[in-house]
Amino acid sequence: FAFVGSGSYAADPLPSWNDTATKAAIIDFVERVTREGSAGFVPPAERIATFDNDGTLWSEQPMYFQLAFAFDRVKAMAPQHPEWKDQQPFKGVLESDTKAVLAGGKKSLLEIVAATHSGMTSEDFERIVADWISTAKHPQTGRLYKDMVYQPMLELLAYLRANGFKTFIVSGGGIEFMRPWTEATYGIPPEQVVGSSVKTRFELRDGKPVIVRLPEIDFIDDKEGKPVGINSHVGRRPIFAAGNSDGDWQMLQYATIGRSPSFALIVHHTDDQREWAYDRDSHIGQLDQALDDATRQGWTVVDMKQDWKRIYPAQ
Amino acid sequence: FAFVGSGSYAADPLPSWNDTATKAAIIDFVERVTREGSAGFVPPAERIATFDNDGTLWSEQPMYFQLAFAFDRVKAMAPQHPEWKDQQPFKGVLESDTKAVLAGGKKSLLEIVAATHSGMTSEDFERIVADWISTAKHPQTGRLYKDMVYQPMLELLAYLRANGFKTFIVSGGGIEFMRPWTEATYGIPPEQVVGSSVKTRFELRDGKPVIVRLPEIDFIDDKEGKPVGINSHVGRRPIFAAGNSDGDWQMLQYATIGRSPSFALIVHHTDDQREWAYDRDSHIGQLDQALDDATRQGWTVVDMKQDWKRIYPAQ
Ligand SMILES: [Ca+2]
Ligand SMILES: [Ca+2]
Repeated sequence: FAFVGSGSYAADPLPSWNDTATKAAIIDFVERVTREGSAGFVPPAERIATFDNDGTLWSEQPMYFQLAFAFDRVKAMAPQHPEWKDQQPFKGVLESDTKAVLAGGKKSLLEIVAATHSGMTSEDFERIVADWISTAKHPQTGRLYKDMVYQPMLELLAYLRANGFKTFIVSGGGIEFMRPWTEATYGIPPEQVVGSSVKTRFELRDGKPVIVRLPEIDFIDDKEGKPVGINSHVGRRPIFAAGNSDGDWQMLQYATIGRSPSFALIVHHTDDQREWAYDRDSHIGQLDQALDDATRQGWTVVDMKQDWKRIYPAQ
Repeated sequence: FAFVGSGSYAADPLPSWNDTATKAAIIDFVERVTREGSAGFVPPAERIATFDNDGTLWSEQPMYFQLAFAFDRVKAMAPQHPEWKDQQPFKGVLESDTKAVLAGGKKSLLEIVAATHSGMTSEDFERIVADWISTAKHPQTGRLYKDMVYQPMLELLAYLRANGFKTFIVSGGGIEFMRPWTEATYGIPPEQVVGSSVKTRFELRDGKPVIVRLPEIDFIDDKEGKPVGINSHVGRRPIFAAGNSDGDWQMLQYATIGRSPSFALIVHHTDDQREWAYDRDSHIGQLDQALDDATRQGWTVVDMKQDWKRIYPAQ
């Protein structure tokens, strides 16, 4: 007999989590901060939870999905840029020669981002992203990228919200790349999405108000940038933070050090059968210092292989 | 017989507003966007309302209250800065010689802001602001500054929220100057406050995570900056925006032009008995181009003297 939707009294709020210590720790924390009159009680307004996106809420291999989006944009825009077929890094993208693209390092990637992520209005960019996310598929799984979100994490987000938490995304990914689809996918509205951004400018274009995306980075929401982004957009320290890489290390410190009750979760990619397995030596989602720190800080590490009953939602 | 708290069915949701065309226009708009099945219906998630603060939600004469805060901070910090008694603009502040302070123009004000608004952690600054706002009084009215908020606007904020709107502040004032008190005063939590900001840095100080406020402007949330700030923090265009000066002009354009239904409100300071009267020639809260534009755009102009039954809350 399940009391569906009744928050902490639901029979099993996290059905896709195995009954391991990880699941028990999450439920224990949530029950503690929501029990009125207890020492650990936290008022609803302060129940801020922040989640990294890539590798924490959805997959990120063999490359960040936003990079796949950028590559697809280069291909879509190529007819308007005949010069690209002879010009790296665009040539490499058009010839699906990822090695040639990556050979140019960060500079090449920034060129691709500038060419594909700026010059248009925010509204136009929103439409472009919305079209892509509703159709683009991962080359290995054949799933829509947006269906490569983690079912256990969707349940965790819903469980926290049912218990009065306000859930935020705090990602190194583009803030305007995420906002068009995070509400439908994660139940997180645009105003609760924090990410990296380009500079923008307001103007009246033919009398119509628009926000123009400029080819210049404004803010990188990664590493030390994550607490800065949280302070700017949320204005409160989270009491719950989840990440999967060293890019989240400072956010986890910010949420937990000297702070009780608080909770930090690290999604450790240990399942090379159902997803991918990588950590200390990965060029994407490197998890090294934060993993070393987890024991010392009392952070909870999700072992995907052991702790998760399933990875992706049923299709 | 009043149906208290029942949203649009309350007997009079705006009791401090006189029964003028202004009040009728507000209520008509809210009823239109919330009537399910009607052509003007707007889903709750898109009911974003943005409010300027100085001169729109609270008074701003004879100087912005945040400047009064900065001057009070100079006085409080003076014992640690003996050099200030011979050095403008600090000398002027310490001698209450506002003319000497203002003679230095914008550069002087930025010096004062840097000296009083940076160098500390965000948490320390929050405490400083919270202490000030709970005790500092306006020299002319003798009221606490935080009690010089407009009762009719408090009712408007509550009325909008009761009808599914999410209310935001979008102010030229400092984001971290407002956040410590906007929730108690306006019912607007920190994560719904957008404002000007200084650059910040995350660090572990003696092992404790802190956000340090740096003496460098990061973002000016005024004029063209307001739509940019809204796009960054909210990620949706508002359908309701309220301001009082040309600093809000672009925000009002952004919310309304080419957009139906939408609503823009300008608070026109016309009451030199109960508050202040100023507009086109004022050095604070100058209202000129936006006022000219109001008729053309169909924006609603509040005549404080005529439209408001009372100005401040009962004490
Ligand atoms: Ca990540
Ligand atoms: Ca104003």
